[in-house]
Amino acid sequence: MDPNAGPTLFDDMAPTATVGKKKKKTTEKTTTGTKRRATAQSMAERQRDISVSEFFTKNRHLLGFDSPLKALLTAIKEAVDNSLDACEEAGILPEITVEITQTEEKRYRIAVEDNGPGVVRDQIGKIFGKLLYGSKFHKLSQSRGQQGIGISAAGMYGQLTTGKPVRIQSRTGPRKKAHMFELAIDTARNKPDIHTDVEIEWDKKHGTRVEIEMEAKYQKGQRSVDMYIKQTAISNPHLTITFTDPNGETVVYERNTKELPPETVEIKPHPHGVELGRLIQMLKETGSRSLSGFLQEEFSRVGAKSASNIIKGAGNGLTTKSYPSRVAREEASALHKSIQSAKISSPPTNCIAPIGEDLILKGLKKEIEADFYVAATRPPSVYRGNPFQVEVGIAYGKPGGVGLEVTDEGRIKKKKKKPDSKTAHEELIADGDEPVRLLRFANRVPLLHLGSACAVTKAVIQTNWRGYGLSQARGALPIAPMVILVHIASVWVPFTSESKEAIANYPEILKELKLGIQECGRKLGIYIRKGKRLKREFDKREYIEKYIPHIGIALQEILDLSNKDRDETVATLEDVLHRSRNF
Amino acid sequence: MDPNAGPTLFDDMAPTATVGKKKKKTTEKTTTGTKRRATAQSMAERQRDISVSEFFTKNRHLLGFDSPLKALLTAIKEAVDNSLDACEEAGILPEITVEITQTEEKRYRIAVEDNGPGVVRDQIGKIFGKLLYGSKFHKLSQSRGQQGIGISAAGMYGQLTTGKPVRIQSRTGPRKKAHMFELAIDTARNKPDIHTDVEIEWDKKHGTRVEIEMEAKYQKGQRSVDMYIKQTAISNPHLTITFTDPNGETVVYERNTKELPPETVEIKPHPHGVELGRLIQMLKETGSRSLSGFLQEEFSRVGAKSASNIIKGAGNGLTTKSYPSRVAREEASALHKSIQSAKISSPPTNCIAPIGEDLILKGLKKEIEADFYVAATRPPSVYRGNPFQVEVGIAYGKPGGVGLEVTDEGRIKKKKKKPDSKTAHEELIADGDEPVRLLRFANRVPLLHLGSACAVTKAVIQTNWRGYGLSQARGALPIAPMVILVHIASVWVPFTSESKEAIANYPEILKELKLGIQECGRKLGIYIRKGKRLKREFDKREYIEKYIPHIGIALQEILDLSNKDRDETVATLEDVLHRSRNF
Repeated sequence: MDPNAGPTLFDDMAPTATVGKKKKKTTEKTTTGTKRRATAQSMAERQRDISVSEFFTKNRHLLGFDSPLKALLTAIKEAVDNSLDACEEAGILPEITVEITQTEEKRYRIAVEDNGPGVVRDQIGKIFGKLLYGSKFHKLSQSRGQQGIGISAAGMYGQLTTGKPVRIQSRTGPRKKAHMFELAIDTARNKPDIHTDVEIEWDKKHGTRVEIEMEAKYQKGQRSVDMYIKQTAISNPHLTITFTDPNGETVVYERNTKELPPETVEIKPHPHGVELGRLIQMLKETGSRSLSGFLQEEFSRVGAKSASNIIKGAGNGLTTKSYPSRVAREEASALHKSIQSAKISSPPTNCIAPIGEDLILKGLKKEIEADFYVAATRPPSVYRGNPFQVEVGIAYGKPGGVGLEVTDEGRIKKKKKKPDSKTAHEELIADGDEPVRLLRFANRVPLLHLGSACAVTKAVIQTNWRGYGLSQARGALPIAPMVILVHIASVWVPFTSESKEAIANYPEILKELKLGIQECGRKLGIYIRKGKRLKREFDKREYIEKYIPHIGIALQEILDLSNKDRDETVATLEDVLHRSRNF
Repeated sequence: MDPNAGPTLFDDMAPTATVGKKKKKTTEKTTTGTKRRATAQSMAERQRDISVSEFFTKNRHLLGFDSPLKALLTAIKEAVDNSLDACEEAGILPEITVEITQTEEKRYRIAVEDNGPGVVRDQIGKIFGKLLYGSKFHKLSQSRGQQGIGISAAGMYGQLTTGKPVRIQSRTGPRKKAHMFELAIDTARNKPDIHTDVEIEWDKKHGTRVEIEMEAKYQKGQRSVDMYIKQTAISNPHLTITFTDPNGETVVYERNTKELPPETVEIKPHPHGVELGRLIQMLKETGSRSLSGFLQEEFSRVGAKSASNIIKGAGNGLTTKSYPSRVAREEASALHKSIQSAKISSPPTNCIAPIGEDLILKGLKKEIEADFYVAATRPPSVYRGNPFQVEVGIAYGKPGGVGLEVTDEGRIKKKKKKPDSKTAHEELIADGDEPVRLLRFANRVPLLHLGSACAVTKAVIQTNWRGYGLSQARGALPIAPMVILVHIASVWVPFTSESKEAIANYPEILKELKLGIQECGRKLGIYIRKGKRLKREFDKREYIEKYIPHIGIALQEILDLSNKDRDETVATLEDVLHRSRNF
């Protein structure tokens, strides 16, 4: 491989069948080769920047816009997420309306309106017309949005498929004017292209309304907008949401509680979750003037004493007074190791607002008719320095499913079937011979797609449901008339894609999911076993009641009894047999 | 809802338990409310740009860097992808070496070196140190890379976990100097931060070497680097690849063919795949000065005649001479509809280079010992205007699996088992009681993760394998000692995430996948049925051979035969019975 030995460049080039052989070698060796071949130079000329909007336009399935059906759901979800986040941040009990109207074949206009704090005029362009812009990415706090992509992407999709701009209407207070914007996204530059910007009259004191026209498909079913709205109502019991479908039918989900979710605070990163590269960057960027101050100010759970211990542990000449931006890479590496081995309390958990067992049960009972309900909220836990919390709820058995109950006198009797109603349970709960239905939520947002890639599904599959009395094939969901609700709340939910439809398989998260599921599973198991026992008892009793009269007749013949004797014997037999079933 | 009626802002605000009640109302009404509450103004102040590097640092699982094990594989994969793309583009038969060395506990240094065309000096910074930069995103042609993210992201991950820069060495020809760069990524600005930029001696005429140190984990198994290298060798039969693992063990996969994959050409978008929004943008940006020219120059498969027909169909005053950038939105919409309903031939398919049935079979046979092989390359097809092509290969049955063969004389005999070897098949092929193994490839790149979310897995599961003689539970992979190789080649592969591990479920793709699988499945079915028949025959013959002597003895007793008569009778019986099995 002596660089001076070979006269030709690429003398290991493949003999390319036709084209290459015909071409004469030119004198300039570096340009020889076949016609089709590129060189480092020609390849360099084709290198270009890719705008993030272009990237997501071409990859719009990453954002949940892969089909007209899903696009409709995704757009509404992004708008509702923003409304709910804004209302909670501003301390407003949210009232949201969602309308879908058909404008022409395969085209719909969605409108999502809230009573939130509104958006100040000079932010409207960027918030709705620029990807990767937002307030939630750089802070660690529990919110529905976290990427600064969603709503702009929805507008971009609308524009891509219909050419029409997004319409935004916003008012920040009764003494402020309402504004109306129409804007498109300049995808090559990832910037808003504002068409209209006017003051308007709006008989709403404060709030925001977004309208997007898009190529879409509306359809009822398990992954429909209807289902999303219903599930959003379950996971946000403080929300009143009104949905009008393209046929003009309106459903209102009234709030279950007037209490907003508990306030969650923004937290600093936990030292155990910080990577070396990030630490180095933070050391460079900090405003702190001492290493000790840096550790205390930039991280949660580090006081003067633990900062001092960490720095001592790092050695390498570092002191509490070392100037952060002068810490060299090797020293930072020692500091990082010392942080990892230091004992530091777990991150604060007041940054997490779970729904709570009570409200989960309330929500399940309101929307799903079942025989048995149970819920469990796990204590908060941590993955990669990020606090998170898992909650699980189960609704089992259709009304009148097992169909038996124990009377006050301790006898079993058949329950009356509740009259058929057109309520939610029919859509939410599975039939007895179907896999259970999962309702997955992340920071109170229902996840309707990509179930098979989600850690929640994995956790349910890996749970041994046979231990709780259900049937389950290996590697599959259990079969039962059952709904499992799983909610994960975190300051940073790791999704498998920007469309935020499935939770990534972090081992710490999987573990907590399983523990939560097991907690509910055990209680379900007790109920099911009791139900099975009741069923067995009832069958036995029915059997007895069916055959004892025949035994009576037989005895009458054999023993030559009178009718009265026979009836007495039958009664005695029944009594003895029932009592022998000792429950 | 009269804006002047209510004196307070947010009078629908939730009564918030403690904090709110203690606070007095200030005179400025717009700032009243509870302490915790944000306003549109305070929320606006927190809005910020998010750099794409920051975004992917925080979401690095989207790029395949969610665990140390996966990170190692992803980084190597990105580097090898780039090497293979560059070699093919430059017409060089690729020779790639991959080395992993352990530097300290939980840390490895990867080095990927190729004999490609090299990278010109002033592009090295951006190519390796800037996300969303590259030559493949803006063109429609079959390549492994397409996003301009991968290799920079690998470097970013190394830097994040070890603080160390990426090292790149490159030479573009024997008469050029080799360059060595060390660079980091400035994540806040998504720009390369070049530490070192020197000329060096390199006894290689042309090529590129990338070294990244990272927190990682090395482990053998189904999703290991070893497996990735093996599968890469199968799908790139023109590649010689050498892999040295952290224990210093080296494996060389020699190329199967000296022919490079056929040249693929870059294509223009097909008119049927263009969305209205994109059409409007193209009309604005085109250099064409007439609508007819625009349609012919910017799209594939549009000639003067079909351009004229499309324009006529659009009406709205549009003529072939209309100036593209003056076409209004409504006119563009009419044009779009006319395009959609126009008859236009399918996109050209010389932009696709399948592996081919022969080379798939060769690859399977080389790496997997099995009893039966079959491969099928489907004709090209189109999704959303993008041509793609599906290929399927199957290797079935471990050597000596059914264990029977038909001799030249038409008798069945037991096959000799091949001696156990330490070759690949042990890892690649499943055991008889396990689900089949899938080898998924996209543009010749093995996909090792996220199988459950992949259209390939879905297609295999949705195929009725029982029809081909395998056992399969509903919604599950078939159970068999079998490997199914599936390759999809396209000018744009729709992946479910930036880590490019699973193919999105586009209906057109799913359909083609199933057709390819069925084509192989049918041939497999014939083989399996023959095998089963052989097995039945063999069992029957064994049965006959076992019992006929006893029948002989019984007959001898009953009929009082001599030993010779008995043996003759037995021979006759055997002959008659064997012949009656008529095969």
